[in-house]
Amino acid sequence: MLHEARDVEGGAADGAGEVGSGHAPRPGPLVREAAGLQITPVIMVGGAGTRLWPLSRRSRPKQFHALLGNQSLLQTTAERVGGSAAAANFLPPIVVTGEAHAAMVREQLEGRPLGRLVLEPLGRSTAPCAVIAAVLAGAGDPEALILLLPSDHFIADAPGFRRAVAEAAPAATAGALVTFGVRPTRPETGYGYILAQGQGAVRPVERFVEKPDAATAAAYLADGRYFWNAGVFLMRADRLLEEMGRYRPHILQSARRALEGAQEVEGALRLDREALEACASESLDYAVMEQTTRAVMAPIDVGWSDIGGFDALWEAAAKDAGGNAVSGDAVLVDTRGSFVSSDGPTVAVLGGLELVVVVRDGVVLIVPRDRAQDVKKVVDELRTRGREDLL
Amino acid sequence: MLHEARDVEGGAADGAGEVGSGHAPRPGPLVREAAGLQITPVIMVGGAGTRLWPLSRRSRPKQFHALLGNQSLLQTTAERVGGSAAAANFLPPIVVTGEAHAAMVREQLEGRPLGRLVLEPLGRSTAPCAVIAAVLAGAGDPEALILLLPSDHFIADAPGFRRAVAEAAPAATAGALVTFGVRPTRPETGYGYILAQGQGAVRPVERFVEKPDAATAAAYLADGRYFWNAGVFLMRADRLLEEMGRYRPHILQSARRALEGAQEVEGALRLDREALEACASESLDYAVMEQTTRAVMAPIDVGWSDIGGFDALWEAAAKDAGGNAVSGDAVLVDTRGSFVSSDGPTVAVLGGLELVVVVRDGVVLIVPRDRAQDVKKVVDELRTRGREDLL
Repeated sequence: MLHEARDVEGGAADGAGEVGSGHAPRPGPLVREAAGLQITPVIMVGGAGTRLWPLSRRSRPKQFHALLGNQSLLQTTAERVGGSAAAANFLPPIVVTGEAHAAMVREQLEGRPLGRLVLEPLGRSTAPCAVIAAVLAGAGDPEALILLLPSDHFIADAPGFRRAVAEAAPAATAGALVTFGVRPTRPETGYGYILAQGQGAVRPVERFVEKPDAATAAAYLADGRYFWNAGVFLMRADRLLEEMGRYRPHILQSARRALEGAQEVEGALRLDREALEACASESLDYAVMEQTTRAVMAPIDVGWSDIGGFDALWEAAAKDAGGNAVSGDAVLVDTRGSFVSSDGPTVAVLGGLELVVVVRDGVVLIVPRDRAQDVKKVVDELRTRGREDLL
Repeated sequence: MLHEARDVEGGAADGAGEVGSGHAPRPGPLVREAAGLQITPVIMVGGAGTRLWPLSRRSRPKQFHALLGNQSLLQTTAERVGGSAAAANFLPPIVVTGEAHAAMVREQLEGRPLGRLVLEPLGRSTAPCAVIAAVLAGAGDPEALILLLPSDHFIADAPGFRRAVAEAAPAATAGALVTFGVRPTRPETGYGYILAQGQGAVRPVERFVEKPDAATAAAYLADGRYFWNAGVFLMRADRLLEEMGRYRPHILQSARRALEGAQEVEGALRLDREALEACASESLDYAVMEQTTRAVMAPIDVGWSDIGGFDALWEAAAKDAGGNAVSGDAVLVDTRGSFVSSDGPTVAVLGGLELVVVVRDGVVLIVPRDRAQDVKKVVDELRTRGREDLL
């Protein structure tokens, strides 16, 4: 299905009539070879970004916000694997999103070639999503490469990222399931780690490691063989389906059924709700990557951040001489190392040291930067108080 | 002028026709004795309250805000010396205010007996103001007692304050110039001090002391003979004029002239601008109290605060178990000793320790409580940036 739209110039599959119309050349190994490396990006538009409340809200989560620069994280993700610089190696992406956010995705990706827009009536994490993308991308060519990537991460060095993907492609083509590992720059306790062997561009995974405590994280950092699990994967469509069938046959089956029962809705593919409800919600990491013997890790050093909280956002943002990252109308006096963002009201901070101040849609959040990871506590408290209007 | 309105029940002199109409009995020592103690309060409605920005603004300074409870500081001041409990000893007050705030004063004091409303086309501190009040209050009875008091202070124990005034009245009647001294509760560096002799209800002033440094303030606190200068004065009208003539003849002359050239404006007395411009701007402390040999101090211990900043406001406000003073829509998590006030937006504070957060009219201020005295730095910065709209 998707493949048929691949070579249509600027051809987002936004009209049911064009899909399967047969006008586009049927792609296969020959086409892929001629055009060089041909990878189908799968942009997974999920996640709530709770730790970025009140900037990230249920109605407009993290990935739809221009957190850094003028484009949203979703838009920079699409640009990373779909801009003119990426055109040589990447096909139009498959985008998978919650049904509630379909309009926002369309709006933000307007004007970009879109391989397929897949709508989930309910969220089921990344494993079912990967199955659906593999089935779609592998329809014309079972060995098609898919690059699964979250829509809410930041990468400073997009060309570097594309190079790393290109370098990992031969291994993926040969049948490996590639996960990308970020070299740690601090003893982070909020991420899972990957322990890999050797020094190559692609390294056999020894094991995946759960989020460590502070002491363990410091040891990982010192060790040098541990990498952050970035949640970005490159693999052949058929290999993914094969491994899923081996380790999570139920997910494979339910996800396939959700796709088989899908309906065309304004050019998008709306997955079958009942089948999806019956499907386990599991991450691709747990379901496949931690089980398979084919996992390899490709190290990347490209200014990656999951923008997992205001501390990470401050870290990635441009800062003034006082180390303050400021957007909107703000007056800072005797203030250092702070993140201040307002969508309107004037924010005056006096004597602020490493503070986070966010003003959005009639809500003001104040938290020390070193407590930024606990913002979900505020969200929990609001939920307890029945303040759903603010979430 | 004022005296003629004294015994008119609820008779605010808000109509020029009533003033000097001769229907009220002419008061004198006899009348004063019969009615008990008769003091004319002079409420001085001045000051910008810059350190309470953005709550206090040029268009609506500190004294017009309900900072504690439901009434504004001006209203509680008027109630302190004008409510039914005060009726036995206090005549309707003379209120002196800047012309720009006349409407706000009228609105907030509506329904209260008003001795006289005096409008200043420009501010000239308290010495000229005292002269004008003394001339007005002493018109019928030169020995009339006037109680000069700022409109922007807070006193928790109003009956205690009235008792202290009554106890100091004999000394004032005998010709002393009484200043009220607050027993210090902390080594405050923001106030002037009074060193007084002895232990009585009224004590000879040894000297007035400028704002001390921290070490000196600590020594004063330990010494026990030093009191905070509250800027509240009780004296005979004639004595004030006499002492002013002795130490500041020019102020006496200019202030008299400003009154002589005054115009009736909607029942208020608008002072002559030119005469006022020619008058030196000086406080009653500097002009008279620090010069005269007749100064005595009456100690008060009545929960006084000048609400000179958000630290003082927090101190005086009701607090929850975590020591947080909160008004408006706020969610506090792991937050202690903080002052949070919002006029609309929801404020969420996580991990806030001794913070001040104020949201008013589209402005958000954040400052550690121990830097609250520096809020004027923000105001200065805004002025430098030409953001007069926010002041």
